[in-house]
Amino acid sequence: MRTQLSSALDGRITREMRIVARQEHADAGDVMERVGKGVLVIPSNGLKPPRRVVGIGRGLRTKVNANIGTSPDSADLSLERRKLRAALDAGTDTVMDLSIGGDIRKIRRSIMSVCPAPLGTVPIYQATVHAASEGKGIVSMDADAIFNAIEEHAMDGVDFMTVHCGVTTRSLNELKKTGRVMGIVSRGGSFLATWMLHNRRENPLYEQYDRLLGIARRYDITLSLGDGLRPGCLADANDRAQLAETRILGQLAARARQAGVQVMIEGPGHVPMHKIRENIRWQKRVCDGAPYYVLGPLVTDVVPGHDHITGAIGGAIAAWHGADFLCYVTPSEHLSLPTPGDVRQGVIASRIAAHAADIAKGLEGAEKWDEQLSRHRFDRDWKRQISMSMDPAKAKRIRKKSRPGAEDVCTMCGEYCAIKQVEGLFRKRKRALGGL
Amino acid sequence: MRTQLSSALDGRITREMRIVARQEHADAGDVMERVGKGVLVIPSNGLKPPRRVVGIGRGLRTKVNANIGTSPDSADLSLERRKLRAALDAGTDTVMDLSIGGDIRKIRRSIMSVCPAPLGTVPIYQATVHAASEGKGIVSMDADAIFNAIEEHAMDGVDFMTVHCGVTTRSLNELKKTGRVMGIVSRGGSFLATWMLHNRRENPLYEQYDRLLGIARRYDITLSLGDGLRPGCLADANDRAQLAETRILGQLAARARQAGVQVMIEGPGHVPMHKIRENIRWQKRVCDGAPYYVLGPLVTDVVPGHDHITGAIGGAIAAWHGADFLCYVTPSEHLSLPTPGDVRQGVIASRIAAHAADIAKGLEGAEKWDEQLSRHRFDRDWKRQISMSMDPAKAKRIRKKSRPGAEDVCTMCGEYCAIKQVEGLFRKRKRALGGL
Repeated sequence: MRTQLSSALDGRITREMRIVARQEHADAGDVMERVGKGVLVIPSNGLKPPRRVVGIGRGLRTKVNANIGTSPDSADLSLERRKLRAALDAGTDTVMDLSIGGDIRKIRRSIMSVCPAPLGTVPIYQATVHAASEGKGIVSMDADAIFNAIEEHAMDGVDFMTVHCGVTTRSLNELKKTGRVMGIVSRGGSFLATWMLHNRRENPLYEQYDRLLGIARRYDITLSLGDGLRPGCLADANDRAQLAETRILGQLAARARQAGVQVMIEGPGHVPMHKIRENIRWQKRVCDGAPYYVLGPLVTDVVPGHDHITGAIGGAIAAWHGADFLCYVTPSEHLSLPTPGDVRQGVIASRIAAHAADIAKGLEGAEKWDEQLSRHRFDRDWKRQISMSMDPAKAKRIRKKSRPGAEDVCTMCGEYCAIKQVEGLFRKRKRALGGL
Repeated sequence: MRTQLSSALDGRITREMRIVARQEHADAGDVMERVGKGVLVIPSNGLKPPRRVVGIGRGLRTKVNANIGTSPDSADLSLERRKLRAALDAGTDTVMDLSIGGDIRKIRRSIMSVCPAPLGTVPIYQATVHAASEGKGIVSMDADAIFNAIEEHAMDGVDFMTVHCGVTTRSLNELKKTGRVMGIVSRGGSFLATWMLHNRRENPLYEQYDRLLGIARRYDITLSLGDGLRPGCLADANDRAQLAETRILGQLAARARQAGVQVMIEGPGHVPMHKIRENIRWQKRVCDGAPYYVLGPLVTDVVPGHDHITGAIGGAIAAWHGADFLCYVTPSEHLSLPTPGDVRQGVIASRIAAHAADIAKGLEGAEKWDEQLSRHRFDRDWKRQISMSMDPAKAKRIRKKSRPGAEDVCTMCGEYCAIKQVEGLFRKRKRALGGL
C-alpha cells in the first residue's frame, strides 16, 4: 500500500498532509516535502478509519503525548478510560497505551474505540507479559512472539509504536564500559537486555529489522525507535551508551525511510539543563533531522511527587532547541501509576513547555495567544482572560473560591490593583504621560 | 554603625560572612571579598537579634523567596501565619510580607516574631494604603510619609526592602515611547507613577535617594531596587522602559555601595525563554554584577492556574544564566491571593528551578544530591529515596495511596520494574555483561 512517506516521495499530497498544512498554517507542498525528507511524520494507520490527524516535526507546533495503561498492580479498564478522558480534556495531542496488566488486548481495543487522537503502543510489553504469564519467564519468549504482537497491534489500528531496536550487542557493550548509576530504566529496554544476555543472542528487532519494516509498511505504522538505554538519572545523561544507541537508531531511521516507513526517535529521560541542547543536536545530526520524541527530560532527580514540573523545565528547553514531541511526565512518576488527576496535571505541564518553546523558537503565530490574553488581562476582562487560557476550568475554580469586593480586580491586590491604578494613564496615554 | 558591606571594605569578616561561608562550602575571605564588590549580599538588619543567615549572589546556591501578606479582600492574620508556616516547611530561604490589608504594622510584627528566615517588605505599600485610608487618595501622600514608613520597617527589624527608585521621569518617558500591551503591573510602580504624574514631580525615592541610603545604612538594610516598570506580558519583555529602568538601578546600586549599603536588583516578570539570557546579561552588565532577584520569570502568559510551572521554567533558565534569587510564583497568580497550599506549591516549584540551575551552572556539589538519591532509587530503597527528596511528604502520600503487590517496586510497572529486571546484570556487572 501507499504510505504517507511513499506518497510524499511520489510527489502526492495526501488528505492527511492537507489537514496538517491547514492546522499549522503551512503549505501542503511543504508538508509533503518534509514528510518525504523524514523530518515530519503523520502517524496514521493506513488500514483503519482515520483518527484525528496530528503532524509531528520540523516547522510544526510542538506536540504532547500522554501515557496511560494498566500495570499488574492496577488493571482497571474503567480507570483507564477515565485517564484517557482526562488526557484528552487537558488537550493532549496523542495517547500511548502502555498497558502491562489485565487483558492487554481488550484494554487496547477499548481505549482505541473511544480515542479520537493518534494512538501509540509498545507491542513488546504484550509479548513479554504473555511469555511471563505462561510461567516460562521472559527469556523463553521467541522472536516470532514479538513480531506477532507487533502485527496484532498494527491490525488493531495502532498509529505508532515504540520498538527498542537500538538495544544491541554493540550498545550493551558501550553500556558495560560506562559504569552507570541507574543501569537500564526503560521497561522495553530491560526486557530485551535480559532476553539478549540470557540467550546470548542479538535483539530480534535489530536482527530482523526488515521484517519489522515489512509490517510497518503494510499498515503505514510510524515507528518510534525507542531509547532502551536512556539515562535514568542526571549522572548517566549523554553517556556513551546513550549516544551509541542514538547512532544506531539514526542508521535504522535511514533504512526505514528507504522502505517508505515513517520514523521518529525517542530520547531521554533525565538530562541536566546544560546538556539538553547538545543531546538534541546530536540526535538531529545522527538521525538526519528525524522528529525527536523526548520523555521530559527531567532536569533533576530529587523531586518525586513533582516530576511534571522538572519535566516541564526540561521539555521546554528541549523543544526550544528542536525536540518535536514531548512525552508528558506526571506528579506520580517514580512513585506509582498516575491517577486521572495526575494525567491532567502532566498534560498541562507538557503543554506549557511546548507552547513556551514554540514562542522561543519563533514559531509563527505562537505569541499571538499570549498577546491576546494579555490584552484581556489589561482590560480586566476576567471572562475572556479565563476562557482563552490553557486550563479555563482551573483558573475559574481559583477565581470563584476567592471573590474580590470589586468585580473588576482580584483578591491579590483588591482595590490596589496596579493595572486598574494606572489604567487611565494608558487609556489616555497621550494626555496623561504627555504632561511629564 | 558598621554594615556588612563597610566591614567587608575594611577587610573584616563578620559573623554572618563566616556562616555563609560554612553553609556554602566557601572560603570566608572570598565571601567577604564578594560582599565588598557588591556581587553578594547578606540581608540582615544590623539592629535586631539575628535571624537565619542567608547569602545571595555570586558563587552561592540560588535562593528562593516566598511572598505572603494580606490584601483588602483578605486580611486574616491567622491565615498569614499559616502561609508563613507553609512557606518555611516547603523550604523557602526568605519571606516577604507584602500586606496591604488590615493592620499592616501589626501583621508585619506578628509575622516577624515567628519568622526565622530573613524578612523583606515594601514600605511604600503601607504609606500608600495609609494615605488612601485617610480618604485623600494616594496622590496626596507626601515624601515624608514614604520615608517614615521606610524607617518604621527598618526599626521593626526588616532585613531587606523593595524600593522602586527607578520609576523616574526619564524611565516613564521611555515607557511612553514604547507603547506597551500591559502598562505597569508592579503595585509599587503603579503607586509611584500615579503620584508622579498627578503631582508632576520626580519620584521621592529617586530624588531623595541619599535620605533612603541614610536609613538603610543606619540599620544595615539591604535595598532591593524594585522594577516598577517590569513587563507584565511577553510582548512587553526587554522593552526600552524595562532596560531604561535597569540602567537607572545600576547607577543607584553604585551609589548604594559607596554609602556602605548592600543592594540587589529586581527583575521581571514575563519574559519568553529566548530573551531571558539577554535580560540577565544586561542586568549584570549595567549593575556591575549586583545580585539579581527575579519574579518568575513567566515564559508564557496563557496559563493562569499553573503559573508556578511557567515560573519554574523561566526561573530555572534565569538562574542558570546568572539570576541569584528567585521570587516564587504560585498557582493563584493573576487570579487571587494564594492559599497556604498554593504557597507550598510555589516554593517547591521555585526550589526545583533553583536546584536545576545550580546543577546547570556547575555549582560545586549540587549534583551530588541527585546522584545519591538515584543510587537509592536504583537500590529500590524507598525509604531513603523518599526521605531525601525535596518534598518527602508528597512523595510519601503518593506512594502510600497506591501500594504495590511487592514492596520493592511501585505500581507503575509492578513486577515488570525495569530496574529490578536488570538489577542482576548491574550488581554482577562483570559476569553478566561480560558474557556478551
